[in-house]
Amino acid sequence: MRLENVNSPADLKQLNVGQLEELAEEIRRFLIESLSVTGGHFGANLGVVELTLALHKVFDSPIDKLIWDVGHQAYVHKILTGRKDQFPTLRKYKGLSGFPKRSESEHDMFDVGHSSTSISAATGYALARDLKKEDHHVVAIIGDGAMTGGMAFEAMNHVGHMGTDLIVVLNDNEMSIDPNVGAVSNYLAKIRNDSHYKNAKAEIVSLLQKLPSLGTKVAKGLERIKDSLKYLMVPGMLFEELGFTYMGPIDGHNLPLLLQGLEQAKQTKGPVLVHVVTKKGKGYAAAEGSYDKWHGVSPFNIETGELPKAVSSAPSYSSVFGKTMIRLAEQNDKVIAITPAMPSGSGLLEYAEKFPDRFFDVGIAEQHAATMSAGLACAGMRPVLSIYSTFLQRAYDQTIHDICIQNLPVTIAVDRAGLVGADGETHQGAFDISFLRAIPNLSIMMPKDENEMQHMLYTALQQPGPVAVRYPRGEGKGVQMDEQFHEIPFGKAEILREGSSQVALLALGPMVELAEKAADALEKEGVFPMVVNMRFVKPLDSELLMDLAIRGYRFITVEEAAVAGGMGSAVMEFFAVNMISGVEVFPIGLPDRFIEHGNVKQLLESVGVTTERIVEHVKRLMPKKRQRA
Amino acid sequence: MRLENVNSPADLKQLNVGQLEELAEEIRRFLIESLSVTGGHFGANLGVVELTLALHKVFDSPIDKLIWDVGHQAYVHKILTGRKDQFPTLRKYKGLSGFPKRSESEHDMFDVGHSSTSISAATGYALARDLKKEDHHVVAIIGDGAMTGGMAFEAMNHVGHMGTDLIVVLNDNEMSIDPNVGAVSNYLAKIRNDSHYKNAKAEIVSLLQKLPSLGTKVAKGLERIKDSLKYLMVPGMLFEELGFTYMGPIDGHNLPLLLQGLEQAKQTKGPVLVHVVTKKGKGYAAAEGSYDKWHGVSPFNIETGELPKAVSSAPSYSSVFGKTMIRLAEQNDKVIAITPAMPSGSGLLEYAEKFPDRFFDVGIAEQHAATMSAGLACAGMRPVLSIYSTFLQRAYDQTIHDICIQNLPVTIAVDRAGLVGADGETHQGAFDISFLRAIPNLSIMMPKDENEMQHMLYTALQQPGPVAVRYPRGEGKGVQMDEQFHEIPFGKAEILREGSSQVALLALGPMVELAEKAADALEKEGVFPMVVNMRFVKPLDSELLMDLAIRGYRFITVEEAAVAGGMGSAVMEFFAVNMISGVEVFPIGLPDRFIEHGNVKQLLESVGVTTERIVEHVKRLMPKKRQRA
Repeated sequence: MRLENVNSPADLKQLNVGQLEELAEEIRRFLIESLSVTGGHFGANLGVVELTLALHKVFDSPIDKLIWDVGHQAYVHKILTGRKDQFPTLRKYKGLSGFPKRSESEHDMFDVGHSSTSISAATGYALARDLKKEDHHVVAIIGDGAMTGGMAFEAMNHVGHMGTDLIVVLNDNEMSIDPNVGAVSNYLAKIRNDSHYKNAKAEIVSLLQKLPSLGTKVAKGLERIKDSLKYLMVPGMLFEELGFTYMGPIDGHNLPLLLQGLEQAKQTKGPVLVHVVTKKGKGYAAAEGSYDKWHGVSPFNIETGELPKAVSSAPSYSSVFGKTMIRLAEQNDKVIAITPAMPSGSGLLEYAEKFPDRFFDVGIAEQHAATMSAGLACAGMRPVLSIYSTFLQRAYDQTIHDICIQNLPVTIAVDRAGLVGADGETHQGAFDISFLRAIPNLSIMMPKDENEMQHMLYTALQQPGPVAVRYPRGEGKGVQMDEQFHEIPFGKAEILREGSSQVALLALGPMVELAEKAADALEKEGVFPMVVNMRFVKPLDSELLMDLAIRGYRFITVEEAAVAGGMGSAVMEFFAVNMISGVEVFPIGLPDRFIEHGNVKQLLESVGVTTERIVEHVKRLMPKKRQRA
Repeated sequence: MRLENVNSPADLKQLNVGQLEELAEEIRRFLIESLSVTGGHFGANLGVVELTLALHKVFDSPIDKLIWDVGHQAYVHKILTGRKDQFPTLRKYKGLSGFPKRSESEHDMFDVGHSSTSISAATGYALARDLKKEDHHVVAIIGDGAMTGGMAFEAMNHVGHMGTDLIVVLNDNEMSIDPNVGAVSNYLAKIRNDSHYKNAKAEIVSLLQKLPSLGTKVAKGLERIKDSLKYLMVPGMLFEELGFTYMGPIDGHNLPLLLQGLEQAKQTKGPVLVHVVTKKGKGYAAAEGSYDKWHGVSPFNIETGELPKAVSSAPSYSSVFGKTMIRLAEQNDKVIAITPAMPSGSGLLEYAEKFPDRFFDVGIAEQHAATMSAGLACAGMRPVLSIYSTFLQRAYDQTIHDICIQNLPVTIAVDRAGLVGADGETHQGAFDISFLRAIPNLSIMMPKDENEMQHMLYTALQQPGPVAVRYPRGEGKGVQMDEQFHEIPFGKAEILREGSSQVALLALGPMVELAEKAADALEKEGVFPMVVNMRFVKPLDSELLMDLAIRGYRFITVEEAAVAGGMGSAVMEFFAVNMISGVEVFPIGLPDRFIEHGNVKQLLESVGVTTERIVEHVKRLMPKKRQRA
């Protein structure tokens, strides 16, 4: 076994190609076995085994900087940089992160999780190198999906202009999570598949050699053409026009070719793009045939390739969203679904089949998705932009500038709002309430369960302006689903229990359940808090709040979102702006730090968003208990 | 005079080319005269006179949709669509907006102000048209500068793939406000200037005709080449590869050519890119030679072309920023300035001349700017990202995901924070406190004057993590500038007057002056509020707040920023999270609506952020006054 002797990239330097190929097979086995137990990102990592080996063989990490885009394909890199023993803890609380982390290894150059950042980060490293007159290589490894993100283009446009020494390895696996869309994707396919491209160079050279006997005028013209024929010889014209030297396409599972190509890139001055073609799931038959299912997996059976069936009886919020969209689209031919590259994750596959004309997967392009939604709304449609909370950060300006200033009826379905678990810091949906709440014209709702969610989506589509409906990742509560939609009274909260202790628990979304449990526990001790399902972060139920304040209530707000600028602050602002003095509001929510990976329950406990904390808070507010303290 | 008879695009339909050319000259005179009185965006509008006439001649607005990118070049469009009489009110309070506004005219299809949105909006319109089976044209008019914004690429990648009928007019004036940077810009210059491109088609066709007598094998090879030679015949290869039909370059001041080109685009199926070359400031000599000065102007002298000298003795915050950067860079060779296409607006021209190696204008590419700054910081540099508050919205995810999760020492110089005035809704820096405050690891400061500003920038650069220093648009206060930098005690506010009435005015930035004036007024009535220059929105001066709360103070916070999630909320959260009951905090700031254009003083009055309001608030808090109410 070679793998056990590989503890750092230095251990690769002595291996010849045959030995590296053996190692590749061992790594593949290790990955399959390890991920069959822990789960994790599967297809992408099997796809880059040879590429990662070649990168660490040709370059000298950490002197040379390897910068992984998105980062969920960096498992092999982690294995080769001394972290293979930590794989049993992958993506678990306090365990190995599923993404590169500078705090984990000197070989991890840039923390990542979102897509399309690597070329910008690499440009920063490369410019700093030149300023410091250092001599090393900077390599960004980016997928073809991530290449559709606008900031990747911004970076190429800049670095292509600067002419900085920088290598971009384009890992073209023809997929992000779902099949890629976009003109660039078509273009790459053309390069891969067009034999014309492949053979053009040889043919043209040979042809030109056969044309020496023409008249001088023609020859002069030919000279001119010849001069231009570099465009025909270079398949990566698009990248060449952006100032990059294009190399490829290279078979990403052929180690000798990879080593040769990367070595050549290393010798080339200026920005270089190395086009490497890989296969997601390479080496594991079940995964090669079914990319989306094998993008990220739960523990699975290696022998059969069977992925575990979900054991829960409750559908996920995403799947309820998808089913609701189908019904909404059936009722209203103006309804349109837009997703930035997440048709499966967002639960929209069935919708897309049923309404192919009213479904737009725009690629990893959140900005375009938001502004295109605004355009659709201007033209009288009812677009629903389905987007994860963490990725809505990418479309923040467009939400303000294109959707909300014009007060357009765009529904933003904010999926994975709150903690997401194993993906960790980069993916937690912690900030959307804070950043959305400041935007005029925008309403914000969150349902307490999946049944309320469908009614909220329906309600949002009746509104004349923009509405964000946020909902959590994962399963609903398994409640009965109503057959008919109904409108949720706009801006009205729902009192779930009246209570009698002049304390109201104002809870949002999944926190309603915690508030209910806290109330159960408190009732046993003779304390009877009111429990309110807030439903609306904006507009707040001002009537209810005012009424309760007048009746001397104190408030505890509970939300799975940052306290800074969150719903709790909204409640405090409401009283303060109206100059109502003396109302006590105590917020429970996510603290002012980034929250790592782990399961959601563990994470909520770690930050004190728990039933116990609510109980404790309420007790502190009770006069008797207070005197005892 | 033709112009007086043009009140809608319909009035153009009867005019022949000669008459349109006369009209162009009249419009140019009208613009020069009108803007010499009101000021406004100058160069870009003079550049698109013929283009706008041609667009309205060839297309039928509002049935056909003309969508202007950025929008500050839409004055001619406004003149032609019945708004020429409103030009005396241009960019004034309650007057004509400097940008397209759907509320102003049925010919304005999409509100705008920020760059690079038009292709996305047009895509939305075009897809809606196809779904509704309507038959009209959708045209996005976008500058070459705006084309460097990533979302323009996202849109082209999507629409190029879809093959939707859509016309993109690329208005190539070789400039955004400052000269453009980027590979695409080089590429366009190549198309414009390379005679090879211009003549390629004719030459190749003629050459190929001269080659009939070759052997069949060669002929077969030639056939293949011929097949590819479309690439040589088409100068806009980059756009063609993205799925667009390229047409151009067309002289944008030649009406016959423009009419012909647009007519041809109108007949072409699928996405079309029409490359039009214009000259900023065309027809006014002074402006043609000096683009940046004549981008946006104050009232000027038509005869002499003299722009008014600033009469104030106080330097602008931007210019103080620029001068401070020079001193910081002199002291520390790790200091680097990054701007997304705003070297002059940000006050960085002199810096750029002094430190060309440590100055990066990345083009209109806020996302790349932020993440590249993170990369520079990873590599040990001290990047200062200079960015307007409203444009920082474009780099929100990058601020969270790339700068703050990694806790990198990037200084974000947030220019034009607060109200900006004449640019209106799209440009007000109203939200940055709300959206930045939720981000862990990030500190936020704002100086009370330009002297404090230089010390804050210096202080930010001593910190180990990310710091945002926000400062307003326009002039400083004309205070004495210290010669030596000193560190501002981190997280500490400054008490400017002690007071004795148990009310503290917690003021931020320019609001300190209002608080002082309010205190002056109140002192005459025997009320003595404490006045605090907060300096830090995050971290708050918790010691001071706690101390004052214990001493029974009530607080009024004053900030030129959204109340929702603003500094006032931060103060309330501080007490609430620490479970300090009964502390009264009343925020004054921007209300929950978008704020229109006008001068800043008018606007602040319109939203009640005034000395009078502070006085009123304080009086309300005074026990005696309260009883009288």
